[in-house]
Amino acid sequence: MTATNPIVVSDSAPATTALRSRHLLGIDGMDASEITLILDTAEAMKEIGARAIKKVPPLRGRTVVNLFFEPSTRTRTSFEVAEKRLSADTLSIATATSSVTKGESLIDTVRNLEAMDPDMIVIRHASSGAPHLLARMCRSSIVNAGDGMHEHPTQALLDAFTIRTHKKRLAGLKVAIIGDLLHSRVLRSNILLLKTVGAEVWVCGPATLVPAGLDRLGVTITTSIDKAVEGADVVMMLRIQQERMHGHFFPSLREYFSLFGLTRERLLGAKDDVIVMHPGPMNRGVEIDSEVADGPGSVILEQVSNGVAVRMAVLYLLAGRDETLAPQ
Amino acid sequence: MTATNPIVVSDSAPATTALRSRHLLGIDGMDASEITLILDTAEAMKEIGARAIKKVPPLRGRTVVNLFFEPSTRTRTSFEVAEKRLSADTLSIATATSSVTKGESLIDTVRNLEAMDPDMIVIRHASSGAPHLLARMCRSSIVNAGDGMHEHPTQALLDAFTIRTHKKRLAGLKVAIIGDLLHSRVLRSNILLLKTVGAEVWVCGPATLVPAGLDRLGVTITTSIDKAVEGADVVMMLRIQQERMHGHFFPSLREYFSLFGLTRERLLGAKDDVIVMHPGPMNRGVEIDSEVADGPGSVILEQVSNGVAVRMAVLYLLAGRDETLAPQ
Amino acid sequence: MTATNPIVVSDSAPATTALRSRHLLGIDGMDASEITLILDTAEAMKEIGARAIKKVPPLRGRTVVNLFFEPSTRTRTSFEVAEKRLSADTLSIATATSSVTKGESLIDTVRNLEAMDPDMIVIRHASSGAPHLLARMCRSSIVNAGDGMHEHPTQALLDAFTIRTHKKRLAGLKVAIIGDLLHSRVLRSNILLLKTVGAEVWVCGPATLVPAGLDRLGVTITTSIDKAVEGADVVMMLRIQQERMHGHFFPSLREYFSLFGLTRERLLGAKDDVIVMHPGPMNRGVEIDSEVADGPGSVILEQVSNGVAVRMAVLYLLAGRDETLAPQ
Repeated sequence: MTATNPIVVSDSAPATTALRSRHLLGIDGMDASEITLILDTAEAMKEIGARAIKKVPPLRGRTVVNLFFEPSTRTRTSFEVAEKRLSADTLSIATATSSVTKGESLIDTVRNLEAMDPDMIVIRHASSGAPHLLARMCRSSIVNAGDGMHEHPTQALLDAFTIRTHKKRLAGLKVAIIGDLLHSRVLRSNILLLKTVGAEVWVCGPATLVPAGLDRLGVTITTSIDKAVEGADVVMMLRIQQERMHGHFFPSLREYFSLFGLTRERLLGAKDDVIVMHPGPMNRGVEIDSEVADGPGSVILEQVSNGVAVRMAVLYLLAGRDETLAPQ
Repeated sequence: MTATNPIVVSDSAPATTALRSRHLLGIDGMDASEITLILDTAEAMKEIGARAIKKVPPLRGRTVVNLFFEPSTRTRTSFEVAEKRLSADTLSIATATSSVTKGESLIDTVRNLEAMDPDMIVIRHASSGAPHLLARMCRSSIVNAGDGMHEHPTQALLDAFTIRTHKKRLAGLKVAIIGDLLHSRVLRSNILLLKTVGAEVWVCGPATLVPAGLDRLGVTITTSIDKAVEGADVVMMLRIQQERMHGHFFPSLREYFSLFGLTRERLLGAKDDVIVMHPGPMNRGVEIDSEVADGPGSVILEQVSNGVAVRMAVLYLLAGRDETLAPQ
Repeated sequence: MTATNPIVVSDSAPATTALRSRHLLGIDGMDASEITLILDTAEAMKEIGARAIKKVPPLRGRTVVNLFFEPSTRTRTSFEVAEKRLSADTLSIATATSSVTKGESLIDTVRNLEAMDPDMIVIRHASSGAPHLLARMCRSSIVNAGDGMHEHPTQALLDAFTIRTHKKRLAGLKVAIIGDLLHSRVLRSNILLLKTVGAEVWVCGPATLVPAGLDRLGVTITTSIDKAVEGADVVMMLRIQQERMHGHFFPSLREYFSLFGLTRERLLGAKDDVIVMHPGPMNRGVEIDSEVADGPGSVILEQVSNGVAVRMAVLYLLAGRDETLAPQ
């Protein structure tokens, strides 16, 4: 990829009108035309969110179960809002991880749920591959809302939607992703998506937090935040999961901030119209300075808002209905 | 009851078109015609569950409160799905038992809830008789979703529905119920129902787990699983509640399985077309072998699926509305 | 205010047809005409609660988030029922206080929620002023469901509605409020409302539980329950929060009851048609005798019932829609 002739994959991808799978397990395996279809559909959904009556009928009479084995107010709420705007009947089950430590228990839990004939199951689970296991077992459509350190596809899609809204394209952009590269499913899904649509991805984090094999994903790896940020169109910060970390991967949060925290000064190296992203929840003063988090280039709250539209789009497309989006 | 002239009570019961009570407190006190009415209504409800749009309007504008004083993802979820398919507004309250240890507290809690004019209250409570107390206090219809070691009527109804689906009748069948006879409200409701409709019930469990007075319910009691299973049309396993049990009622889970666990070999003594049931959640390798749980005669997941239809039928009949079940 | 010429403020208040604020943060700042508007609207809502189908369409397609940072089954349930009767899509988030101890965290939590474009946020929070902070940050309408020891406006409104139903007026009534004056947001909102509409308010509690500055609110303070009750039209008992109290503010619950508990004998000093109120949950035998709580003058359960109607009125008026209340 060169600056003179960027490959604008997302723009030139052959148009498609349906997803190939009835599940959304990950970005892995999706092609650019499917990603474009989701993002285009999300545009229509975003428009619904701007109406006084934010409700359309496509999922009326459909049951969506939100099965969260890890706590997540933010993602669960976003899915619930999306489901209700599409008129689905929703059911949320928050299960302590302790009761499902054995794989067999997860299977029995899901088989029982499946026997109640939900149309879709949105699942978050600490084990990588849990949604894929469900997809093999279930008639329901499965949506991965985060599995272990593996994938978090709706996050990558809402990030892409947010970038596209601001930059009018994805291909050819320099996106710097900075922070805890080791524990992040957000990183993995974002790399897969951004590479598929032709973006140039730089990743940056402490050497102790670079997972093996990351170099095979076609990204440029650096431990210098300044090099990562230099000329970037997009700077995406990853959350430091303090609870897993103290003293193991870096000396202190203070030192982490001094080396990898995003400050206004550091951001000066990026393009003038750089946007700053974060999947939340933020550790202000650890991976990102409040001045930047709340600054002019920050699109962090837009990401949250777009999350609802993108999840509506995913649910709508997986339901495979050819229904109107006119007000109900 | 003899094989030559089985009393087919459920088939010959005088037809009824309404339940006598506006509550479902237990199987105790129901006659065969009421049971048949619920099962017949559940057939219609099951058909709704097979539609693309699984929603009908009978409970629209009605409020159903699910008041669970004991944790129960499975039963609560089944009721919630049933309520939403009938278009009810649902509200689920999970209350830690600790805050309602005093009878008075339960009464005040319920009086307050009742003051908000719900149409129905579905209650699970650790104390036997709690739903009956509510029924005396409330204008709302009360549905017992399990009270102490007393009754769990919707479980017995869904079990009967599942049996009837496979055997085309209930009267005259040999049903063997095996496991923890002492702590099981499922057992009690099933015996009451099955005797009412003319089935022959065998119960089997460790001598330490046979409650006093069980013999007065008209069942045959044995400690030999082989005798219980012999010639059975239906084998229903009960859950061992391991948390209450270790070392008190039997030496070990291993020994329990060797004496009372259902294996493929043991099941050979039953009728060729025997069906195997379990109210869930299963302890695989304790009361039932996985080979049997997942085997050809197992209807365990059908039970879960039928649970939604049966609960829809109960809620529909208690609401006493003469409304269409056409798609909304 | 004299008995010969009571100032009937609520009756003579200039009529208004809309609330001035799009938030309900407290009674503080509301005028008598706004209070009257809410109470009048609640009359219409109460009528809806008496219908077989208790559902009207004004909030259809609107999202209401119930954000409870303190546990409250009663108030949360009341709001949820009110929201569903108005056809809103509801979403309840119960957050452990521990995760939001820092003000910044609350702000980020709410900013994220706000980004999902809810129409209204109902918030309960342990910190006084939390709803006001939200109101400055949010496009959504904010409803205060109790903030610290500050205000609980919907409780005061439902109390006023209940009094007005029985007494046909508010102005000129003697209202005695008795109990823990120090920790009660209910007290504060009630004083503000009752003074605004021209009632005469007496407050009574142990000297150790009288907050500084209470005298500036225009109420008569006494430590004699008999003086407070004497000639009262309304006796409103406040909950003793036992968990905060033992041994600190008074010697024992027994002694508290002997000095400040409402008994049938003590109530004899009040007007013949006195009504007895309590915001719940009651400590029977601590602040109120069961004989009184369940006695002929008790309107405690009516308060709960009216709570739904008053909350419907508040949500309806804040939504600012001029929609029909005809059955949906």
